[in-house]
Amino acid sequence: MMNAKPVAIVGASGYSGEELVRLLLAHPHVELAAVTSRQYAGRTLAQIFPRFAHHPRARTLRFSEPNPAVLAKQAQVVFLALPHGVAAEYAVPLLELGCQVIDLSADFRVRSAAVYQEFYAHEHPAPELLARAVYGLPEIYRAQIKPASLIASPGCYPTSILLPTLPLLKAGLVAPEGIIANSLSGVSGAGRKVELDYLFVECNESARPYGIPKHRHLSEIEQELSLAAGRPVTIQFTPHLIPVNRGILTTLYLTPAGATLEQITECYQAAYAREPFVRLLEGKALPDTKNVAHTNVIEIAWRHDPRTGRLIVMSAEDNVVKGAGGQAIQSMNLMCGFPETAGLM
Amino acid sequence: MMNAKPVAIVGASGYSGEELVRLLLAHPHVELAAVTSRQYAGRTLAQIFPRFAHHPRARTLRFSEPNPAVLAKQAQVVFLALPHGVAAEYAVPLLELGCQVIDLSADFRVRSAAVYQEFYAHEHPAPELLARAVYGLPEIYRAQIKPASLIASPGCYPTSILLPTLPLLKAGLVAPEGIIANSLSGVSGAGRKVELDYLFVECNESARPYGIPKHRHLSEIEQELSLAAGRPVTIQFTPHLIPVNRGILTTLYLTPAGATLEQITECYQAAYAREPFVRLLEGKALPDTKNVAHTNVIEIAWRHDPRTGRLIVMSAEDNVVKGAGGQAIQSMNLMCGFPETAGLM
Amino acid sequence: MMNAKPVAIVGASGYSGEELVRLLLAHPHVELAAVTSRQYAGRTLAQIFPRFAHHPRARTLRFSEPNPAVLAKQAQVVFLALPHGVAAEYAVPLLELGCQVIDLSADFRVRSAAVYQEFYAHEHPAPELLARAVYGLPEIYRAQIKPASLIASPGCYPTSILLPTLPLLKAGLVAPEGIIANSLSGVSGAGRKVELDYLFVECNESARPYGIPKHRHLSEIEQELSLAAGRPVTIQFTPHLIPVNRGILTTLYLTPAGATLEQITECYQAAYAREPFVRLLEGKALPDTKNVAHTNVIEIAWRHDPRTGRLIVMSAEDNVVKGAGGQAIQSMNLMCGFPETAGLM
Amino acid sequence: MMNAKPVAIVGASGYSGEELVRLLLAHPHVELAAVTSRQYAGRTLAQIFPRFAHHPRARTLRFSEPNPAVLAKQAQVVFLALPHGVAAEYAVPLLELGCQVIDLSADFRVRSAAVYQEFYAHEHPAPELLARAVYGLPEIYRAQIKPASLIASPGCYPTSILLPTLPLLKAGLVAPEGIIANSLSGVSGAGRKVELDYLFVECNESARPYGIPKHRHLSEIEQELSLAAGRPVTIQFTPHLIPVNRGILTTLYLTPAGATLEQITECYQAAYAREPFVRLLEGKALPDTKNVAHTNVIEIAWRHDPRTGRLIVMSAEDNVVKGAGGQAIQSMNLMCGFPETAGLM
Repeated sequence: MMNAKPVAIVGASGYSGEELVRLLLAHPHVELAAVTSRQYAGRTLAQIFPRFAHHPRARTLRFSEPNPAVLAKQAQVVFLALPHGVAAEYAVPLLELGCQVIDLSADFRVRSAAVYQEFYAHEHPAPELLARAVYGLPEIYRAQIKPASLIASPGCYPTSILLPTLPLLKAGLVAPEGIIANSLSGVSGAGRKVELDYLFVECNESARPYGIPKHRHLSEIEQELSLAAGRPVTIQFTPHLIPVNRGILTTLYLTPAGATLEQITECYQAAYAREPFVRLLEGKALPDTKNVAHTNVIEIAWRHDPRTGRLIVMSAEDNVVKGAGGQAIQSMNLMCGFPETAGLM
Repeated sequence: MMNAKPVAIVGASGYSGEELVRLLLAHPHVELAAVTSRQYAGRTLAQIFPRFAHHPRARTLRFSEPNPAVLAKQAQVVFLALPHGVAAEYAVPLLELGCQVIDLSADFRVRSAAVYQEFYAHEHPAPELLARAVYGLPEIYRAQIKPASLIASPGCYPTSILLPTLPLLKAGLVAPEGIIANSLSGVSGAGRKVELDYLFVECNESARPYGIPKHRHLSEIEQELSLAAGRPVTIQFTPHLIPVNRGILTTLYLTPAGATLEQITECYQAAYAREPFVRLLEGKALPDTKNVAHTNVIEIAWRHDPRTGRLIVMSAEDNVVKGAGGQAIQSMNLMCGFPETAGLM
Repeated sequence: MMNAKPVAIVGASGYSGEELVRLLLAHPHVELAAVTSRQYAGRTLAQIFPRFAHHPRARTLRFSEPNPAVLAKQAQVVFLALPHGVAAEYAVPLLELGCQVIDLSADFRVRSAAVYQEFYAHEHPAPELLARAVYGLPEIYRAQIKPASLIASPGCYPTSILLPTLPLLKAGLVAPEGIIANSLSGVSGAGRKVELDYLFVECNESARPYGIPKHRHLSEIEQELSLAAGRPVTIQFTPHLIPVNRGILTTLYLTPAGATLEQITECYQAAYAREPFVRLLEGKALPDTKNVAHTNVIEIAWRHDPRTGRLIVMSAEDNVVKGAGGQAIQSMNLMCGFPETAGLM
Repeated sequence: MMNAKPVAIVGASGYSGEELVRLLLAHPHVELAAVTSRQYAGRTLAQIFPRFAHHPRARTLRFSEPNPAVLAKQAQVVFLALPHGVAAEYAVPLLELGCQVIDLSADFRVRSAAVYQEFYAHEHPAPELLARAVYGLPEIYRAQIKPASLIASPGCYPTSILLPTLPLLKAGLVAPEGIIANSLSGVSGAGRKVELDYLFVECNESARPYGIPKHRHLSEIEQELSLAAGRPVTIQFTPHLIPVNRGILTTLYLTPAGATLEQITECYQAAYAREPFVRLLEGKALPDTKNVAHTNVIEIAWRHDPRTGRLIVMSAEDNVVKGAGGQAIQSMNLMCGFPETAGLM
């Protein structure tokens, strides 16, 4: 590939990392120059992920130990698909060495080190970088992402909640109080964790809430909602695990602030009608995770309930694409001057 | 079987009917005397439902055309597993002929013929029977069920919403305003409908809302909530379809009316601690549909969120057992003087 | 329960152990007197398996450390749901202390310690007991099971292969050469192993062979086939993993030894028509795991292919019931003089 | 798109048609000029398949009634995704009007009209075209596909059986007698049929054989095997339905004709090492449908069993890609002079 930009993935053995591999192997403007994994160091991508083995690059590229100095020589853009706390340890030297860093962990999503510590239960590992990080939600922060060197790519649940909510809050069309987000996630959302709870037999024919009432993703969700509303927003958020591999379905309960359904619709049209990855559903259609699986699209539909006065907004996304790897590549496309949809259609 | 009470199922070919068959074949105090199905008339239970074929009765009992005069001679208790509108047509003559009738359709769940017409879009077929019908939620209406001749067995969603909510509303511990019920249902909840939407490929790897904002089950849900609250209650209810065979998981968002978490817990203990089919979860446990599948149990857990002030209550049930056939048999046990748990443990 | 026989389960935390718990809690003639688990010692059954919590016994019975001397005082019949190699360590003292032992591991299934060592890669831990053990396939060894003190309950795959094959081989209707068994198993067959391969995301939307060409179960399969044929039999066996919780579907390729289809059918009728747990399918029906799930039934169907001359025999069973816990209880019923179907209908 | 070749799909509403849409919308060298569907005529692709709605073409292209005269003006290449019998009715006029036709039905796969009638139970609708049709298995018939005007794209099961078997048969390394193919298929293989058997609840937690012993696909399978062997070949083939959306896993039982495992391996290497869509598995790896889902790759692995002397060959493919739409596009690429992998990597 001529003039392809070299990119690397640190921590490429989880589900988000795997999805980054899938998308970057097929991306027209980049070359996957390095993938790291302590566990798999020395083995080829094809050996660990047979599904990529028909791609020539996957048969030659070997996992390496993660070493910032080496990575900075191999790649201009580095994706971090690591646990929170660990990601920052790599971001610091990689940025110093001149790399552009796109972090899929939670380490740089929250602007306040104190809030980070409240939700993640340890001190922030690199508070000095917080001001420099841009929250990688392209539909909202496109202008800031383009020149950024450090992207905090949003969480899967936050993406499914923020995109449907932010335009309405910004426009003052819904009240910032009393917001409820009820989310269903596929099991890949739990990561590639080898734990009893995620065994096939424990997840199949099962539906269950978890992580209530204070899931960590609330920190970034409420930060962004508060910025949009212009005042502190506290929401109710209940995640559930359902037996699908991919997908998040979020149902939001909102209170219109004197707005009509037409105003809501106009607001969504103004915000998203030209967005390549936001699908505003018309007519009777409602979101369905199967219609966004393996794509970078988020579907949004909304209904006014005249009986209760509430606005019901529903969204569907693929948690490892728009909710993780795909959205991170969307940010990369913006940072590198590629077409925003490159490698994502 | 000595002295076994003869029972019949009208419309035994759907998923609720099939579950009634399963449970009644194994019931210690009844004999399945007749099953009807226009579609399968003349064939044995074992031919249509091979899974019951090891039971001798399933190999000899044949589906018949539904004929009230014949059924009344064959059975003392008749279960109606028919579509709404059709069920009433059988209930009227069966009651006249002296049968006890347990109707699993919606026909007798709503006390007002006008509300029925509003939600079901046709005139009530037998309004004169509405006053006679008892809503078959044994934990709430046990005393009324025992002497009843006509039971309106509750819907699957209503059961999952009412059992967790009624005690709190009755005790005034939560506000009747602003209640939200977010429910997930397995595909058997759609019935054995041969429609594109319920094909395996369309449901597997899919999660989707449907039927919003005015699902028919709201009629019975709001009726019972209003009775408990002593004033009209309107709620928000969003059903979703998820890829499991059996199970409903409901997450309720309630507002405590000055009540403490201890009072909530005490209320649940007082209401349900001795109920054989209500499992109040303790410690960190949360409801999971896999833990109630194939049983008549409903699991309930609750959490107070100090950040929002809300009370989150979650329930899990098997939609074709506690949400349909099992609960109907629980009513039958009460009506017939059998132990309430007979055939259900 | 009056006069209930006290029974115990050693190693009750796996999927076979859990199924034994489910069935024994509901068994009319036994009392579950003890369950052991190193991992869960001190906790109640209800805490570890919430699905049994509506059963009063599950709320009081606590897992204990496995101690043969204590167990022998608590129980007359002891089920061993332990890994091979470990089971024998408990069988020896329990038998000495007078217990009846039903072992669900492979330790006593093979009559030859040498064959055991060949397939299980370690010396047999108690070769002196091999002659005493009875292979717990009630349809074949009913007479021997009744007076036995040590039952080697068959493996899940062997049950699905032996029951359809043994009568034909004994009658000389099929050739002992060239037998092929192609089996599909649900994920519970792998046990409750917390390994990457059995995570939901790795099993869902996946079908794969494994363990070829020399799966351990071949040792007991070929032993029993050889006994039936009167000479050594070597078969081809390919297990596959498919995304269901429960169920084994086996397709057998056999060569008729001059037999007609009528003779095959007569042979099956003679062998199994009166067996309560063998369902010979008639007409066009073919086995389906969903029709045997949660039951102790094995379904069998057969077809002659005039184009190839082969006999195709198919079976379906629930791998944790007829393939494990249910069949073990069937043996217990025989040993204890209970009706053979007690607790299994 | 400059110079894109216009293509059409007749019968684009089934699962194979839908997959053709997915792949052709993203293909770099073609433009999807027309899609037909009687049922959906007048509606856009995006309305019927929301999952494609982010592609601009899907929002404007409307289903039309299938009219050969119109199609021939719109498209140079026409894919027929129609039932057998119907496809030929369109192929005849389209070929006369100068189109290149790629038929995904069975109509032109079998060279003999008599064999067609034997297996499909009606007279062949266009026997005069049989000699002109090329069986579209590119790895075998690449040279013939390039200049062809009528391609009979292979069935899903045949692809999974023929690719692993043909090279060995041609080389005389395995015996043409006694071949057994045991296949597992995802439910999309049944097509988008609205029938009880394919409802979610009837397929989930189910595994079952069907269509034995004389499945229609045997006609093309045996034709191709016979051509490779140089004499008539009759095989045993058992299809099974398993609860996955996509994927076929085939396990083949073959008898080496004096060949060593090394010769088998060399034969596969010679045949397929440079094929972009055939993945020969090395080491301990075995085929897994999840590793080929959504790709045009077929995985093949083989093992010699020293105990039985047999050769076990296993393959995995995505039934709607390599088994249908992807393979059809691979043929199109060859016919049109595009890179063979265009739009398929």
